[in-house]
Amino acid sequence: MKSTAGKLHTRFNRFAGYLAACCATLHLGCASTQTSTATPTTIDALQQISNWERVGAGVWSTTIGEMDGELRYTELAAERPRLEALKRLGEAEFPFDPDEIRYEILPDGRLMVRIPLAPDEKIYGFGLQLDRLDHTQRVMTLKVDHWSQGGGETHAPVPFYVSSKGYGVFFDTARYLKVYAATGNRKDATQREPEFDRNPVNEEERGKWNAQPRGDAVEVSLLSPGLEVVIFAGETPLEVVQRYNLYSGGGTLPPLWGLGFWHRMHAHADAEDVYAELAEFKEQGIPLDVLGLEPGWMTRSYPCTFEWQTLRFPDPKGFTQSLLDDGIHLNLWINPYISQKGSLHEPLYPLSGSHTVWHGIVPDFQVPEARAIFTDHFREEHFGFGVSGYKADEVDGYDRWLWPDHATFPSGTSAEAMRQTYGMQLQKALYTDLFRSENRRSYNLVRATSGAASAYPFVLYSDSYDHEEYITGISAASLGGILWTPEIRRAGNAREWLNRMQTVCFSHMAMLNAWVSGAKPWSFPEVTDSVREVIELRMRLLPYFYTAFADYHFEGIPPIRAMVLEDGDFRIRAEVEAGELDGETNPYEVDRVFEKNDQFMFGPDMLVAPFYGPRYATAREVALPTGDWYDFHSGAFVGNGEIIEVDAETLGDRIPLFVRGGATIPMLKDAANNAKAVSGASLVLRHYGEGEGFVRIYEDDATTFDYLSGEYRFREVRIREDGSFEETIQGAGPALYGDIEAVEKMTRGQR
Amino acid sequence: MKSTAGKLHTRFNRFAGYLAACCATLHLGCASTQTSTATPTTIDALQQISNWERVGAGVWSTTIGEMDGELRYTELAAERPRLEALKRLGEAEFPFDPDEIRYEILPDGRLMVRIPLAPDEKIYGFGLQLDRLDHTQRVMTLKVDHWSQGGGETHAPVPFYVSSKGYGVFFDTARYLKVYAATGNRKDATQREPEFDRNPVNEEERGKWNAQPRGDAVEVSLLSPGLEVVIFAGETPLEVVQRYNLYSGGGTLPPLWGLGFWHRMHAHADAEDVYAELAEFKEQGIPLDVLGLEPGWMTRSYPCTFEWQTLRFPDPKGFTQSLLDDGIHLNLWINPYISQKGSLHEPLYPLSGSHTVWHGIVPDFQVPEARAIFTDHFREEHFGFGVSGYKADEVDGYDRWLWPDHATFPSGTSAEAMRQTYGMQLQKALYTDLFRSENRRSYNLVRATSGAASAYPFVLYSDSYDHEEYITGISAASLGGILWTPEIRRAGNAREWLNRMQTVCFSHMAMLNAWVSGAKPWSFPEVTDSVREVIELRMRLLPYFYTAFADYHFEGIPPIRAMVLEDGDFRIRAEVEAGELDGETNPYEVDRVFEKNDQFMFGPDMLVAPFYGPRYATAREVALPTGDWYDFHSGAFVGNGEIIEVDAETLGDRIPLFVRGGATIPMLKDAANNAKAVSGASLVLRHYGEGEGFVRIYEDDATTFDYLSGEYRFREVRIREDGSFEETIQGAGPALYGDIEAVEKMTRGQR
Repeated sequence: MKSTAGKLHTRFNRFAGYLAACCATLHLGCASTQTSTATPTTIDALQQISNWERVGAGVWSTTIGEMDGELRYTELAAERPRLEALKRLGEAEFPFDPDEIRYEILPDGRLMVRIPLAPDEKIYGFGLQLDRLDHTQRVMTLKVDHWSQGGGETHAPVPFYVSSKGYGVFFDTARYLKVYAATGNRKDATQREPEFDRNPVNEEERGKWNAQPRGDAVEVSLLSPGLEVVIFAGETPLEVVQRYNLYSGGGTLPPLWGLGFWHRMHAHADAEDVYAELAEFKEQGIPLDVLGLEPGWMTRSYPCTFEWQTLRFPDPKGFTQSLLDDGIHLNLWINPYISQKGSLHEPLYPLSGSHTVWHGIVPDFQVPEARAIFTDHFREEHFGFGVSGYKADEVDGYDRWLWPDHATFPSGTSAEAMRQTYGMQLQKALYTDLFRSENRRSYNLVRATSGAASAYPFVLYSDSYDHEEYITGISAASLGGILWTPEIRRAGNAREWLNRMQTVCFSHMAMLNAWVSGAKPWSFPEVTDSVREVIELRMRLLPYFYTAFADYHFEGIPPIRAMVLEDGDFRIRAEVEAGELDGETNPYEVDRVFEKNDQFMFGPDMLVAPFYGPRYATAREVALPTGDWYDFHSGAFVGNGEIIEVDAETLGDRIPLFVRGGATIPMLKDAANNAKAVSGASLVLRHYGEGEGFVRIYEDDATTFDYLSGEYRFREVRIREDGSFEETIQGAGPALYGDIEAVEKMTRGQR
Repeated sequence: MKSTAGKLHTRFNRFAGYLAACCATLHLGCASTQTSTATPTTIDALQQISNWERVGAGVWSTTIGEMDGELRYTELAAERPRLEALKRLGEAEFPFDPDEIRYEILPDGRLMVRIPLAPDEKIYGFGLQLDRLDHTQRVMTLKVDHWSQGGGETHAPVPFYVSSKGYGVFFDTARYLKVYAATGNRKDATQREPEFDRNPVNEEERGKWNAQPRGDAVEVSLLSPGLEVVIFAGETPLEVVQRYNLYSGGGTLPPLWGLGFWHRMHAHADAEDVYAELAEFKEQGIPLDVLGLEPGWMTRSYPCTFEWQTLRFPDPKGFTQSLLDDGIHLNLWINPYISQKGSLHEPLYPLSGSHTVWHGIVPDFQVPEARAIFTDHFREEHFGFGVSGYKADEVDGYDRWLWPDHATFPSGTSAEAMRQTYGMQLQKALYTDLFRSENRRSYNLVRATSGAASAYPFVLYSDSYDHEEYITGISAASLGGILWTPEIRRAGNAREWLNRMQTVCFSHMAMLNAWVSGAKPWSFPEVTDSVREVIELRMRLLPYFYTAFADYHFEGIPPIRAMVLEDGDFRIRAEVEAGELDGETNPYEVDRVFEKNDQFMFGPDMLVAPFYGPRYATAREVALPTGDWYDFHSGAFVGNGEIIEVDAETLGDRIPLFVRGGATIPMLKDAANNAKAVSGASLVLRHYGEGEGFVRIYEDDATTFDYLSGEYRFREVRIREDGSFEETIQGAGPALYGDIEAVEKMTRGQR
């Protein structure tokens, strides 16, 4: 691999004007021209950082100030950094002049770090921000809370951003972080816009004033004596994200059943209700892998006992096993706050924080003993006899529900750090002490997570429910090592029901969570066939999607990706034809990083553009990157680097899905009812476009952690022009699917 | 005066059940029953406060931790505490067991103070919160910012609250303050609700669960090594507020002209436009005291030069004087951020903060030299030759406009403290160095203020514009020593125009600020007569309202007051008749503190209930406290302790106004065009209800600070049953009005 920074410099030399503008602040070490003043507030007076340490290929870290007693997100990561995988991505040059990143420790205990920005640079990321991906010129408070109004507070405010100039920055601290992105100009900044009068006498001078003049840096501040900053290089924005994920332990690899269809029961449902519901799923022919129980499975909830309510479930063990026999995995709702009436209250009382949540004590999972008491109970009462995992609710906010910022905890962890990491601490407890220790993979839900979380098999969800935001969340998640489900709770009409169902089937977790509204997949009979079809399509795509997750695990490539992560050839032909682009393919040129958040990439080669909202319920635009694109369903050629219109009628009420020319999509020949039926099932390969094809299909035992010790294999298939193929096996792990029964050539219509 | 605390104890003894519930936490020092645990997080382990110091009659202060380098709001107060006036209110007992208020200094630099609450206690206040007055069970961040969504961020987040149990608490620190009011239960709290299951099996047990169980304290936290807490006693909520205002230096007393009608010109207006506009006011017969110029009066704005744009105003001095000759006072818009093109830039550059606002430098008014340079310029360029005052904009927020929390300032003041006090620092500079030093009173606008601000002649305003919220603001202001104008900018129809005009004429500043929309008082011709009538009514009420401001200054009584500040007899007759109230008159009993925020008291005896919004545009309810109430306009008896309906048609499109039985309202016989015409003008007294009457009318020179050295007088008038009267003069100050020409007996209809 070539060095990123070196390549950037070369690119920059082509743009002389740009070079002049950015030289004082970014990448190049030419001397600053500002004059210093008498006050201690100049940029020159800020502290320099001399201790950047290479912590992996293309990854550098520095500790500013004193981190004793401060919690880093990486300390809570599920797995160690995947240094070998980083090495395969290649070494790279540090993307800054090391002198350019400055900091200051203020008398009132705030710590500030300043990272320069070029005049046209954009930054993307900061975790699960549901409104957009580009956060340039925003002020954000990164704090774990319910998503509501933007401003940075959300279920997963990951303090990591990707720059359009080709690097990433991760603030590795469990503190509330205030981010001033290209806003808040210093008075001695050398790179700034001219000052304009807002009310000039001459009319022609009016309108130039800017309410928010662009700043020349990202400045972040936090209340802490120390901060660890991690910088990631990358040839492309995707490579930056890969390095972040690999540094975080790699992406999670769910059990295969986790990628099937999920459904949740009413909070007051009992075992008989569950059996009746399962019978109805069978009758309706709707696949189902996971059945979720809401709080009523416990003797008390909000706060919780985690003890079975035997009036509803008289035989938890037998009940769980009977579902497993049918291929159905049981998921249990929890929140971590413990009722006075539960057996965990007494042992955990001294190991809990000063404040309660709904009167429940708040166990301090940073105390190993507390974690052990908690997970031993879970092993004994549910996971040990076959319960598959949990939905960990209420670890996100609001302030009026959770502990205050001044709460204290036995481990000495600050209330702020507990707030930022409580979801992650709970994940760590369940993952390390249950899933890993029992060597049984799990797939779960959690309401909040943090930085360095990519290796956790937990999917985020929200109450906010706006369909457009939920689609944006799919893209946003891919920039921060997190997973997201735009779960379905209800719909105003059949069209919305189908559109939401189609969206969720192309997300990290295809879950119906309609227990409050009582809706079932077949509640809108006029679209039930289409609903069944998209769920079956998800099931048929399991070999493709599971392989995408393997790439997440081994290479850090998110299985679903924002369009801004697509590679440098991602331009719109119309723009090229209009002469607005010059034919260069520099992925870091801002105007060519393509931010469109209502479509996204599913696996390596599929582009998904769901219908949504009242406005785009049955027709919408899709922006196709350069390259040939084919309709997934029909194989028709649809375009190349252009914006096309799609409508539901033409698609036969199917979701708009497009495949890159030359790509091969491995699918099950028939939709499995659940993952149990996948074992040994026949495959078909769909090859789109002209020429030869190649595809890798990941296989392992689908349920244990044995893949971590090499127990997996890739089936590599080369497809010839005539549709015949040759299969090679890489690795010695177990087989998962059956034979490839056919190659379907999906190429219709004119290029 | 009797001791408050003693009286409270007596009252509490009547309520044995209540007493048991609150004894462990409030007012009584009986022993706590909780058992301590092994962790250092118990209530018992919190620090006690041993150094409560009496700092005035009924006022106590304590310093927790270390306040070196921390800014107190009281350091920025306009005037010294009015200790003599406090003494006249009487001594009182400390309203708590001193052992009950606890604190903790946390390892991460947070300081927490815990003030216990009784189970039924409510708290009101926290400054200009525009949504409601009762903030019990809220979590708020008190931070200066634009008002938007609640949550505590607003133009004047005064850290002062009044308890329904009869005391007030002021956190005297210029820090962001996080307030957890009766939320966030400690696990060892002795006073708490039982725990309920959210999903019980038995249907009859459902619905008891509470999403936000009530906490037993106000807990506040802040980032600071120290905090000063001030406690105020009071026989009534109003007395608590009076003590707070007197401790803050007393209320401001505006120049009489400040209470007249205000109008603002378009930002690009020139001198000729002003003359034309003034001529139109005359022609339309609309009173006018103050003419405001928006930013275009300067050579550059956003940031500013504070230098006259002579292309628009070729002769600033002559222009200002010509307006004064006509009785019109000139008010100039500013923001404090300084343009590179202004003469102040060079001298103030080294005395400004690290960051800019719209590229303007931010002078550090905590540096005396900076303040002197700034105000010398203002004296020279405007105030010195007759400009009357300023509209100080943009000192409130947003984060994306102002300096970041990590900005630094030459005085060493933290960015946080600068944010919390910048509006107040600017007020201090203008008040002390200009208005007081020139011995010329002023009345001004400011976009943000803080604690201990009652003596400043600055009125707050906002961009939020919701009429109902603007009316709530009138009440909210009265709880925090601040002034507020629900200024008018535009209206969707004539009815809204009139309703907003009526509201603003019963606020602290009657201002039309419609320069953007271009609307004039006569823009909706169908209501121009009604608009003129209410402006004229405000002018006729000047003797009444100016006296109310004198009471604000001398006694701390807000001139306009929330209904929750009305005294203990404030009950609704209907409730009494329904047996819901027992006839007791305890102002501290929660259910009898009457929170209704869409009506308020104007001066001592007038109740104002404006029409507002689409829903209450022409008809609404008015809740009358006990006592006889009369329609201001007709003198008709309207009710006593009951809810009545009023409608616009019956009132002849006048604002609903009610006067307490027995009250006398001093008025000008004729509406003055402006305050210049008030001097020597004849008075009439309107006496409402049966029996004899008494009224005090305050007089001074109306423009200087000589009243501070005793140059004022009160005219005390006793009215006999037959309408004849006797007048006595108290004090040796100058006369202001002419003779009392008539007493009007305003009593019609049956009681």
